[in-house]
Amino acid sequence: MTTSTSGARSSEDELIARYFAPLAGQGADGLRDDAATLTPSPGCDLVLTADAIVAGVHYLTDDPPASIARKALAVNLSDLAAKGATPRGFLLTLALPDDWTEDWLAGFTAGLRTAATDFGCQLLGGDTVRAAGPMLIGVTALGEVPSGGMVRRMNARIGDLLCVSGTIGDAALGLPLLTGQSPVWGEGIGPAARDFLIDRYRHPRPRLALAPILLREARAAMDVSDGLVGDLTKMLVGGDRSAEITLSDVPISVAVRAAITLEPALADTAFTGGDDYEILCAIPPDRAEACISEARTAGISLTPIGVVIAGHGPPIFRCQDGSEHIFAVRSFSHF
Amino acid sequence: MTTSTSGARSSEDELIARYFAPLAGQGADGLRDDAATLTPSPGCDLVLTADAIVAGVHYLTDDPPASIARKALAVNLSDLAAKGATPRGFLLTLALPDDWTEDWLAGFTAGLRTAATDFGCQLLGGDTVRAAGPMLIGVTALGEVPSGGMVRRMNARIGDLLCVSGTIGDAALGLPLLTGQSPVWGEGIGPAARDFLIDRYRHPRPRLALAPILLREARAAMDVSDGLVGDLTKMLVGGDRSAEITLSDVPISVAVRAAITLEPALADTAFTGGDDYEILCAIPPDRAEACISEARTAGISLTPIGVVIAGHGPPIFRCQDGSEHIFAVRSFSHF
Repeated sequence: MTTSTSGARSSEDELIARYFAPLAGQGADGLRDDAATLTPSPGCDLVLTADAIVAGVHYLTDDPPASIARKALAVNLSDLAAKGATPRGFLLTLALPDDWTEDWLAGFTAGLRTAATDFGCQLLGGDTVRAAGPMLIGVTALGEVPSGGMVRRMNARIGDLLCVSGTIGDAALGLPLLTGQSPVWGEGIGPAARDFLIDRYRHPRPRLALAPILLREARAAMDVSDGLVGDLTKMLVGGDRSAEITLSDVPISVAVRAAITLEPALADTAFTGGDDYEILCAIPPDRAEACISEARTAGISLTPIGVVIAGHGPPIFRCQDGSEHIFAVRSFSHF
Repeated sequence: MTTSTSGARSSEDELIARYFAPLAGQGADGLRDDAATLTPSPGCDLVLTADAIVAGVHYLTDDPPASIARKALAVNLSDLAAKGATPRGFLLTLALPDDWTEDWLAGFTAGLRTAATDFGCQLLGGDTVRAAGPMLIGVTALGEVPSGGMVRRMNARIGDLLCVSGTIGDAALGLPLLTGQSPVWGEGIGPAARDFLIDRYRHPRPRLALAPILLREARAAMDVSDGLVGDLTKMLVGGDRSAEITLSDVPISVAVRAAITLEPALADTAFTGGDDYEILCAIPPDRAEACISEARTAGISLTPIGVVIAGHGPPIFRCQDGSEHIFAVRSFSHF
C-alpha cells in the first residue's frame, strides 16, 4: 500500500511495520491482518476494560514518552488486577497531533514494549490516526478469570473489612511538583521524596500480583484512580451500606507524611486527589488475616482502613479523636 | 461519586448512567463495574479489531450525530465481517471536544443504540474523556469464529478468483458532494443519485451476512476501506503473487456511472478513494460459482473482478482494450 507521507515522516503502514509490529503477540500475526484472534484458557471468561489518557489531562505533555506508554497500559491493567484478572493482551488507539515526531514515537513504542513484557500483556492490534488536538492514547485491555469469578465492584457486605494496597496520595502530590507551581513544601521534603512522588505520578504500578489473591479472598474490589474518598463512595453506592474509615489508618508514604507535616491541607489532596492505581477491596472479616498475609508474601502491603457498616449515606471518615472529617471535594475528576 | 460539573453539563458518571448504561449488554452489568466479561461460544476464537474515527478526517463535523455513531461501529464490524466473524460486542472510547453538547450526545447514543441492535453487537464498556481537539470515537469490536477459522488477509493463491461485494466508489464520490465544493457533475447526476452517494459516505453497511459464507468459501478476505486499488495491493504484498483486474468488471452503481460519464477522471477517484466498506475476497476457482450464489441468497452481490496470478509487482489493472491503466495515486490515506 502506498500512503501519502508528511515531510520526512513515515506513512501509517511504515509506522506499523517499524514501531508496532515488533510488539505484536501471538494471535496478532505481526499486525499484518485487519484483526487478531484470542481464545481464553479453558474454563475462563475474558475480562475487558478500556481507558484512554490525554496529554495535559492525564499526563503531562513533556513526560518521557516511554513513561506515557507505560502509564497508558498500567492504568488499564490496574482495572484488570482489581477484577482478579490475569492480563492476556491489549489493543492500542493512538491519536497523533500535528507536531508528532518519529523520535517521540520511537521512545513511546520502546517504553510500550518494555511495559508489555513486564506486565505479561501482548499487543494484539490497534489504530493510529492523526487528530489536530492533544495526543490521546486509548487502550482496550483483555484479561481472564475462572468462569463467573470476576471480582465485582458492588458486592461488599456489612461487616467486611476495607483494605487498600500500597500507599495513598503519592501521585496526587507528585503532580504539583511537575507542573511548575514549585510549592514551598516541595523544597521542604527534599530531593529523594520529590523524586519518589514524581515517579509515583508517572509510573503507576498495576497490582497484578494481588489479582489471584483477590479472586480467592475478596468480596468486592476496584482500583483507586479518582481518589480514595470518591472511589470508596462509588464502591458502596446503591446498597444499604456505608463505611467507617479511620483516616490515621490509611497508609501513606514517608514522603506524603513529610509533606502533610509541612502543609496540613495536603492530607485532603492525598485522600481525594486520584492517580493512585492502588486496590481498594472488601474482605470478609474471617479471611482478612489470611488475605493480608498472602498479599505480603506476594510483595504487596494490604492495610485495613475501616469496615462496611449499615447505612445509606456516604462513607464516614473519622479523625483520631473520633470526630468526623468532612472533605470539601470528595473526588477528583479529569472530565 | 461526586465529580465536578462544567456549567449545565453532566459529570462523566451522570453521562454514563443517562446515555450509555441503557446500551450495555449482558456481561457489562449496566456499566456499573470497571470491566465487563465475555466468553466466546464453545469451540470459538474471539476476533478483535480497533478503529477510530476523527471529526474532519473520517467524517464531517456536521454529519448527523446518529450517523457518526453508526459509522464508528460499522467500520469496525466491516473488519469483523471480512474475517468471517460474528459480532459479540464492542468497547467505546469517546473524546469530547470543549464545545460538546448534551443534545449532540443524546443523538449520538440514540444512533449507537439503533446500530448496536441492527448489527447484533452490544456495548461492553468504554471511556469518555475530554480533549481540546476534534471529536474522536474509538471502537474496539469483538467477534467470534470457529477455532482457527479466521479468514486471513494474506492467504490468496495463484488462480483464485478475486471478487468484491456491492459497488465501489460511491462513498468517494459522496464526500465531495458534502464538502461544499459543489462539483459540476454533482448537478448533472440529479438529486436522487446525489442522495445515494452521500448516504453511502455517511452510512457504511458492514457486510455481516457475508461472514459465514467467507468462512466456508474464501481463501482470503479484507474489507475495502482505503480504496480498492490500494487494498488489493495490500492483500497480495509479500508473496510471489500479483493480480490482473479488468476495470470494466469492477461493479459500480448507476450514480457513479453517471458521474464518470460527465467527468471521466472520477473513475480513478472511485477505484482509489476509500470508505467503501465492501469486502474483497479471493475464492478458489472451483468454489466461485457456489460462493457467488450463496452471497446472492444472503442478499449481497459478489462480483468477480480478476484473478490472482504469478508475479511480484503490484496488481495490473486492464482497460477494456487490454491496455494497462496506471493510477497516479494508488490509495487514499487519512493519515
